[in-house]
Amino acid sequence: MSKPDRSLRLKRRIYEIVFEADTPAGKLFDVVLIWSIILSVILVIVESVHEYSIEFQPLFTAGEWLFTVLFLLEYICRIYVVRKKTAYIFSFFGIIDLLSVLPTMVSLLIPGAQYLMVIRILRLLRVFRVFKLAGYIAEAEVLRKALIASSRKILVFLSTIAVLVVVIGAIMYVIEGPAHGFRDIPTSIYWAVVTLTTVGYGDISPQTGVGMFFASIVMVMGYAIIAVPTGIMTVELSNLDRKRSKPTTQVCHNCMREGHDYDAVFCKYCGGRINQD
Amino acid sequence: MSKPDRSLRLKRRIYEIVFEADTPAGKLFDVVLIWSIILSVILVIVESVHEYSIEFQPLFTAGEWLFTVLFLLEYICRIYVVRKKTAYIFSFFGIIDLLSVLPTMVSLLIPGAQYLMVIRILRLLRVFRVFKLAGYIAEAEVLRKALIASSRKILVFLSTIAVLVVVIGAIMYVIEGPAHGFRDIPTSIYWAVVTLTTVGYGDISPQTGVGMFFASIVMVMGYAIIAVPTGIMTVELSNLDRKRSKPTTQVCHNCMREGHDYDAVFCKYCGGRINQD
Amino acid sequence: MSKPDRSLRLKRRIYEIVFEADTPAGKLFDVVLIWSIILSVILVIVESVHEYSIEFQPLFTAGEWLFTVLFLLEYICRIYVVRKKTAYIFSFFGIIDLLSVLPTMVSLLIPGAQYLMVIRILRLLRVFRVFKLAGYIAEAEVLRKALIASSRKILVFLSTIAVLVVVIGAIMYVIEGPAHGFRDIPTSIYWAVVTLTTVGYGDISPQTGVGMFFASIVMVMGYAIIAVPTGIMTVELSNLDRKRSKPTTQVCHNCMREGHDYDAVFCKYCGGRINQD
Amino acid sequence: MSKPDRSLRLKRRIYEIVFEADTPAGKLFDVVLIWSIILSVILVIVESVHEYSIEFQPLFTAGEWLFTVLFLLEYICRIYVVRKKTAYIFSFFGIIDLLSVLPTMVSLLIPGAQYLMVIRILRLLRVFRVFKLAGYIAEAEVLRKALIASSRKILVFLSTIAVLVVVIGAIMYVIEGPAHGFRDIPTSIYWAVVTLTTVGYGDISPQTGVGMFFASIVMVMGYAIIAVPTGIMTVELSNLDRKRSKPTTQVCHNCMREGHDYDAVFCKYCGGRINQD
Repeated sequence: MSKPDRSLRLKRRIYEIVFEADTPAGKLFDVVLIWSIILSVILVIVESVHEYSIEFQPLFTAGEWLFTVLFLLEYICRIYVVRKKTAYIFSFFGIIDLLSVLPTMVSLLIPGAQYLMVIRILRLLRVFRVFKLAGYIAEAEVLRKALIASSRKILVFLSTIAVLVVVIGAIMYVIEGPAHGFRDIPTSIYWAVVTLTTVGYGDISPQTGVGMFFASIVMVMGYAIIAVPTGIMTVELSNLDRKRSKPTTQVCHNCMREGHDYDAVFCKYCGGRINQD
Repeated sequence: MSKPDRSLRLKRRIYEIVFEADTPAGKLFDVVLIWSIILSVILVIVESVHEYSIEFQPLFTAGEWLFTVLFLLEYICRIYVVRKKTAYIFSFFGIIDLLSVLPTMVSLLIPGAQYLMVIRILRLLRVFRVFKLAGYIAEAEVLRKALIASSRKILVFLSTIAVLVVVIGAIMYVIEGPAHGFRDIPTSIYWAVVTLTTVGYGDISPQTGVGMFFASIVMVMGYAIIAVPTGIMTVELSNLDRKRSKPTTQVCHNCMREGHDYDAVFCKYCGGRINQD
Repeated sequence: MSKPDRSLRLKRRIYEIVFEADTPAGKLFDVVLIWSIILSVILVIVESVHEYSIEFQPLFTAGEWLFTVLFLLEYICRIYVVRKKTAYIFSFFGIIDLLSVLPTMVSLLIPGAQYLMVIRILRLLRVFRVFKLAGYIAEAEVLRKALIASSRKILVFLSTIAVLVVVIGAIMYVIEGPAHGFRDIPTSIYWAVVTLTTVGYGDISPQTGVGMFFASIVMVMGYAIIAVPTGIMTVELSNLDRKRSKPTTQVCHNCMREGHDYDAVFCKYCGGRINQD
Repeated sequence: MSKPDRSLRLKRRIYEIVFEADTPAGKLFDVVLIWSIILSVILVIVESVHEYSIEFQPLFTAGEWLFTVLFLLEYICRIYVVRKKTAYIFSFFGIIDLLSVLPTMVSLLIPGAQYLMVIRILRLLRVFRVFKLAGYIAEAEVLRKALIASSRKILVFLSTIAVLVVVIGAIMYVIEGPAHGFRDIPTSIYWAVVTLTTVGYGDISPQTGVGMFFASIVMVMGYAIIAVPTGIMTVELSNLDRKRSKPTTQVCHNCMREGHDYDAVFCKYCGGRINQD
């Protein structure tokens, strides 16, 4: 066996372990990976708590670097074995994999950056793939499709909200002014978002009668506007649901077109009989 | 009549009283039980109010132990008469029945635990069974079915929220930091939940411009995301509703057309009698 | 013309003016009434503002009593001319009419009670009747029907919320306790309502880690639970909408039953031909 | 070429540039306009921030007047070239165009009025027209139609909210009174809006037991009421959606059955050609 051939076999073997979950080794790798991710995220969360941070600092730093080196090795491994390298690097998981190791390094320059490591949690989305939780992926797919199908309506909705919030913020700034907590227009816009979305922190709130009246209108608007994305989403989900309950995968053997109803006997495009089992 | 036979008859009689509500004795037992539950819950709630607590302490303690002993006797009684003892003990109501008597005893060791006695209120769900409020049970059933039917979609939704909240919390911790109330990542995650669900206590809120901007995005996200569970629930309820009222698949033997209502006796197209089983 | 006959004619004339809006006098009466209601409500609202209250006290008292006497006269008038007196007195508008005059009198005994006079604003609902805003009444009717049709589901939903809120309140009281603002169980239940409905005042909020974690779960629950009444309402409104868009008022001439589809030619109950125009 | 003729050609040429976006000059004008709008809005927002405001005051004033003069010239230009002058002046965009230049002038009399200039952002809605974002306009149209179709239901809903809020406000004022922050009835009405819409600032919140109990009821009401506009909007959007995609009413001449899709050429039941106009 020649040397390049051996290297190729090794590459394929690593590929199977790292990217697939069908072999026992691949499965083991994925399970270890998932636990590493969860542990490293918990580590970061616990580290941020002041009392623990002081007491166990060396332990945390060690753990951080351990997981970072592990994930870095894994990242290099993935790049090494994958064929379409750039395709992987710029794919969703490729970017997440990179972002998972960067914060620890950046934290050498900017202290505190290591907390961004929790972005690693997004790598858990792989769990769906590993354990073949097909049903759940299907459900996630339905939600994703509904979001995409209604993305244009949602974009129009969000632009309207954005414009609205700027106008409301400016008007409120003129009404209440810096004396009542509406420091500047950006802060007022922030207040408008807080109010329109019915979050209502109360860190900034109108003090004058006119301000309260105007704020009331904004609140009722926010209260009623929520109906719009809900309506959009419901209609879209209902459409997807209806489509799923009558799939039309039959193809006419005559004109090769599909989209026929369940009760169709003849092709509605060319009049040819549809082959029914 | 032999002794074991008598004991069996007694057991059956107690069973009828305790578990059923068809005999006058059974009905009386259930009514007394319901009032005991309500009274004991009110007792606990009133006891927690400081002024009353000091003044009537002996009364409250007496009442607490009275109801606890009563419910304990009832619990023992239920175990005694029921045939499948373990099935009852580990059933929903079996656990609730046990939890209803534990807090008073635990309060001897851990003061304050007696307030958990309000869990007794869950026993009130029996009221539906007792008074045969069939209509209400049917409605509750519809809601329960809709929840189960969409449970997978809701689980995917909740996991997404969970991951989202961890990432948002960490980012906000890096942006604002402990100086502005974001003490550690768990606190920041708590803030993320408060904001994303549009609750908005305002006990922690962003102080810097970047924090406000990021918080605004989170709020709009939370405002829009609410559309997802609503859409899921609506589609599911609508499906259940349609199932209950959709036309049959019966076909008229005369003209071979379908789409007849459930109560149809004659075909609405040709007047021919529909073959009904 | 005899005396009782004259009295009867007077009665009928007053009835036309007070209860109907077809004659010019009746219309004028209704318009005057509406303005009186609006004015008297504004009067009460303005009176509550401290600065005005001090300055114009005699004016406010005079206005209050003027409107009260007017509405009292109107109330007596209505009782006098109406035939089914008790039916009117215990009808919705009869009770509102009475409640509109009571607060001023009660305020002689309990200062401050006069502010309840704003309940008069409910009398404005008559405005719909007066100006024959048929379209709007129809829309209000649709909303009312949807509420009634789903009232049982909503009741089950509200009972569940009520039980949930008591249990959550008690658990939170045990977790946080009076030291962190959760003074007693009623206050904790109030906090549970504030949180579950996503209102989130922030006057009471969890301080401990366990409390924050539990509160987060409650928030996500509240965030998801909102989907239930929305789903119920949407399905009900959609059903009413569908029914309205295909009314089936046709009656079979043979068996006198209705409920036939638009495309029905024969009665689905007896097979008789439906008379179609 | 005569003089009036030349003037007419000039007018038409300006019209093409200012109102249309088909010629390169017209497109360039629109792009410049959009950037001017965005820049001037950002200018106003940044100006409101105190630190910048002090440092760069002359720059801000200059920029403000520059954009105002530009937009004023454009406004005059539009009036000059448009045929139906009054129609333009009182159209939506005509009013917005005027409101875009007024604040700067008003700010000479009333300081602070210049911030209302952000209303210019509404002019950005022209961006849709300019770049022929047809898809997005169609989606916006769907949302607009749904809002109009359900406007009467929404009006009934909003009137109910308005009446409710006045009554709740007055009752709460009587319960809590000025001592607990409910200064007067208008403030109490503001609190009612804040609570019913689930915004919940917490700047005013009930202090007494009765107040908390009543507030809890209001919150649950607000929580449940949100279902109404959502239901209305969903049904309306679903109706519009169905209209866009429902099957034709075409009947096959051969077998007389219907339910064919819009794009069907042959009957899907018998294969006969469908008579298409």
